[in-house]
Amino acid sequence: MTLYVNLAELLGSRIEQGFYRPGDRLPSVRALSAEHGVSLSTVQQAYRLLEDNGLAAPRPKSGYFVPSARQLPALPAVGRPAQRPVEISQWDQVVELVRSSPLKGVVQLGRGMPDVTSPTLKPLLRSLAQLARRQDMPGLYYDTVYGTEALREQIARLLLDSGCRLQASDLVITTGCHEALSASIRAVCEPGDIVAVDSPSFFGAMQTLKGLGMKALEIPTDPITGISLEALELALEQWPIKVIQLTPNCNNPLGYVMPEARKRALLTLAQRYDVAIIEDDVYGDLAFSYPRPRTIKSFDEDGRVLLCSSFSKSLAPGLRIGWVAPGRYLERVLHMKYIGTGCTATQPQLAIADFIKDGHFEPHLRRMRSQYQRSRDLMIDWVSRYFPEGTRASRPQGGFMLWVELPESFDTLRLNRALLEQDVQIAVGSIFSASGKYRNCLRMNFAARASSEIEAAVRKVGETAKRLIAEMDVETV
Amino acid sequence: MTLYVNLAELLGSRIEQGFYRPGDRLPSVRALSAEHGVSLSTVQQAYRLLEDNGLAAPRPKSGYFVPSARQLPALPAVGRPAQRPVEISQWDQVVELVRSSPLKGVVQLGRGMPDVTSPTLKPLLRSLAQLARRQDMPGLYYDTVYGTEALREQIARLLLDSGCRLQASDLVITTGCHEALSASIRAVCEPGDIVAVDSPSFFGAMQTLKGLGMKALEIPTDPITGISLEALELALEQWPIKVIQLTPNCNNPLGYVMPEARKRALLTLAQRYDVAIIEDDVYGDLAFSYPRPRTIKSFDEDGRVLLCSSFSKSLAPGLRIGWVAPGRYLERVLHMKYIGTGCTATQPQLAIADFIKDGHFEPHLRRMRSQYQRSRDLMIDWVSRYFPEGTRASRPQGGFMLWVELPESFDTLRLNRALLEQDVQIAVGSIFSASGKYRNCLRMNFAARASSEIEAAVRKVGETAKRLIAEMDVETV
Repeated sequence: MTLYVNLAELLGSRIEQGFYRPGDRLPSVRALSAEHGVSLSTVQQAYRLLEDNGLAAPRPKSGYFVPSARQLPALPAVGRPAQRPVEISQWDQVVELVRSSPLKGVVQLGRGMPDVTSPTLKPLLRSLAQLARRQDMPGLYYDTVYGTEALREQIARLLLDSGCRLQASDLVITTGCHEALSASIRAVCEPGDIVAVDSPSFFGAMQTLKGLGMKALEIPTDPITGISLEALELALEQWPIKVIQLTPNCNNPLGYVMPEARKRALLTLAQRYDVAIIEDDVYGDLAFSYPRPRTIKSFDEDGRVLLCSSFSKSLAPGLRIGWVAPGRYLERVLHMKYIGTGCTATQPQLAIADFIKDGHFEPHLRRMRSQYQRSRDLMIDWVSRYFPEGTRASRPQGGFMLWVELPESFDTLRLNRALLEQDVQIAVGSIFSASGKYRNCLRMNFAARASSEIEAAVRKVGETAKRLIAEMDVETV
Repeated sequence: MTLYVNLAELLGSRIEQGFYRPGDRLPSVRALSAEHGVSLSTVQQAYRLLEDNGLAAPRPKSGYFVPSARQLPALPAVGRPAQRPVEISQWDQVVELVRSSPLKGVVQLGRGMPDVTSPTLKPLLRSLAQLARRQDMPGLYYDTVYGTEALREQIARLLLDSGCRLQASDLVITTGCHEALSASIRAVCEPGDIVAVDSPSFFGAMQTLKGLGMKALEIPTDPITGISLEALELALEQWPIKVIQLTPNCNNPLGYVMPEARKRALLTLAQRYDVAIIEDDVYGDLAFSYPRPRTIKSFDEDGRVLLCSSFSKSLAPGLRIGWVAPGRYLERVLHMKYIGTGCTATQPQLAIADFIKDGHFEPHLRRMRSQYQRSRDLMIDWVSRYFPEGTRASRPQGGFMLWVELPESFDTLRLNRALLEQDVQIAVGSIFSASGKYRNCLRMNFAARASSEIEAAVRKVGETAKRLIAEMDVETV
């Protein structure tokens, strides 16, 4: 691990433990440099990481302070998943979530739905309507198995922002990021193979492993710096891992952005043990920092990283347009894409290509990022106010998902059942683990523009949790 | 095999062998009834089957005659594929076909593209445009994993025409028939399992088997009555077959409609050996007979048939909307659909549901069926005129694909290469076999409205074949 991350973690844990209180002045850059024997710029990098995570706030000419405006909930603990490859379970609970349609009256805090009501999406809808009226009806024809060239060219251009130099011919369009992940896994693995995953991990990617007969080896993951490289290295030493599957940017569900140095270190590990990396970057364009964070793929020199993404979070999921940059696995992925869906629908591809080419994508992203950042702060504030004492919460650096941890014996399955009667839905924590861990956690979506309706829903979640905890205490007595 | 099919095959082969010549009167119904000891109605059924296949023509009050208007090419021979399960090859040639985009100037006789220029499709395009303009933007949201209920209800209604009594809740919407087939295979089989297929067989379905690690056991298939039940029974006796995958209606590539009695007999076999059936009905709505033929699924009582279909051939492939009625495998298929693509795009589903509900589907089908039937007759006529002597051709009973068989030593790969220089593309026969059989065969698409351009393209195919045969003869000398 690099020095500044180490230092940030040390300071962060002192703040979390109350060693420094809200409003306290933190040690000066010079003092820390002397104390830890590191350069001034290392300390500055550490403070910037703490700042990103809401644990330190700079005051002009006075140094860094513990933010006092509001007390942030503590960060979630690092998970302790099973230390062996496991068969994945939890499909029943996932299907519970994905079989629900957007019901009128139910506040769906559980699903991965972005806000699609922004006026910055209008040109996309206009383009879809125009395509349907075109005399040559491009939307009705089979596309090639690679996807529409016009769109692949635009995506290759966008990928420069994350440090990737790729051509249109390096990309395969897919039906959402789901198909990108699914085709990637099938391109690299055989049934029975072991896949190392960050933990907690996106349930859709894990169900893909389950459905294809793979085993998941869950690697402990830090809520600020991401997958533990130390634990990963031990696992690589011990097990015949075929591929590492993870979401380093705006992680789902934890929201962190893995520091660049750790991304490089992960790639070096993958090279040393000769394993592939499936990198899910579906929330990467929604990072709150500028410029957007780099992908692991951007450091990839020997084509071992399969970068998977889509427009489902940045534009709209109903379009079902994703892509994969499969590196050395291109031919295999192409075969898997072909047998999965033949080709992808033409019309939404052309509409998105127009939207990007005409310069609508960046302004849309800017607007959504600042909306999501505001909503994050509100959502964390609501959790502080309405949730049981001791509740922990993540500090998302992008995207629109908050991970919340309740006391260890708490059961969010029970909470979800009680909430459905009150027309609120959350994502239960256990679906983010291959082995049903994180039963005391939940994920909430803060994409929608903040409203009193959403605040009321979050309040219901918190108050119902309090009531269930009170009942648990009675039962224990 | 039922009596009338037996009788039809007997008479058919006598006609094919020249025992009866064009213009000859065929034996009377009464005479055949006495000769073969079968009922009058059995003979009538046999004649109707021969009539469907262009081998007999009724004249009012005079009985049946061998059609004399034009001489039809002989039917393709029954294939003799490998008699053991094989690993599937031929991906290179398939990708050659599916990586091509509709190029201006190239006449694509190779791909499975319907004619999408009919004015009867206009309401569908209108609906797509209107959905893009709706204030509530339904096309942007995630759908449920089952697919849109409005569409599933309409499909359940349509399925009544093929004898299926299903509810919306028995159906899962997929991204084209490709995903339906792929999810079905994965729901029923494990890698290494043996799948019995009709032969020749749709290359996409076979590449799916390849990609998922299954082995194909190719069953000889008659160009009029379909998969050989006798050979299939022997195979079931000899090998641990997991599933039978076939296209009984408007078969791709042979074009036959399997007689109803044989469909029932196939299902009985599947029950006896306890195997599942994956039934591809993607061309079923385009059968030239009225009412449209029944599916095997319509006789299924214990949920062992997974019926797969789509709107790719009946409406337009670019929409990527298919479905599967998975019977007892519903939960497994749902999981496989989820991990494949998450859910299917919402907007084309809603547009198709409107199109059917508003009564536009039947008139569209009627128009396309009669266009395709006319084109079939023309295409067969062109093959008779322009192709080398001895060329055989199928008698499609629906859909828009003609299967052509050239002399046994002929290589259609070589033909295709020579044709590409002349801006014509065909589908080579070898991709329709798991083991690279049918190298002397090819498939041509007759969906497009007949034109001098298409006639010229077919003529090029025939004349290039003649030239290559002449060259072969020189080489042999």
